[in-house]
Amino acid sequence: CKKKCDKKGSVVNQNIKKGDSKVVDTFDLEDIGDKKVFCRCWRSASFPYCDGSHNKHNTETGDNVGPLIVGKKSN
Amino acid sequence: CKKKCDKKGSVVNQNIKKGDSKVVDTFDLEDIGDKKVFCRCWRSASFPYCDGSHNKHNTETGDNVGPLIVGKKSN
Ligand code: FES
Ligand code: FES
Repeated sequence: CKKKCDKKGSVVNQNIKKGDSKVVDTFDLEDIGDKKVFCRCWRSASFPYCDGSHNKHNTETGDNVGPLIVGKKSN
Repeated sequence: CKKKCDKKGSVVNQNIKKGDSKVVDTFDLEDIGDKKVFCRCWRSASFPYCDGSHNKHNTETGDNVGPLIVGKKSN
């Protein structure tokens, strides 16, 4: 079944706001500060921020997902 | 198999830069402009930007993922 699961038909988000029809997060550019790291693996306990959980997910599943980082050029 | 696939063990990213060990994207705050919409479903043909493909993915799988939006307060 594993190989089938890696193809179409599996959900990306397993736990976050599953009562919402679509989870969209909006941030003001002015509030980013020096740097923010945003989760794209949907496994973070600090979602929408990344808490490093993508590493555990990648190791467990063979996936290769990681965060989106937005920050000032100096960072 | 469907229910099992919705639980642990399935990859999030099926197609994007699968040769990379971890896909991390970094943006300068100064380059965001008025607004950027970033993909978190890993199905976008314009990844790391959202192209609306999350809607097809959500419909097909029953998922509820959506983008991260970063923009100026006025937007
Ligand atoms: S915890 Fe999800 S991308 Fe880092
Ligand atoms: S296409 Fe992936 S979140 Fe919109």
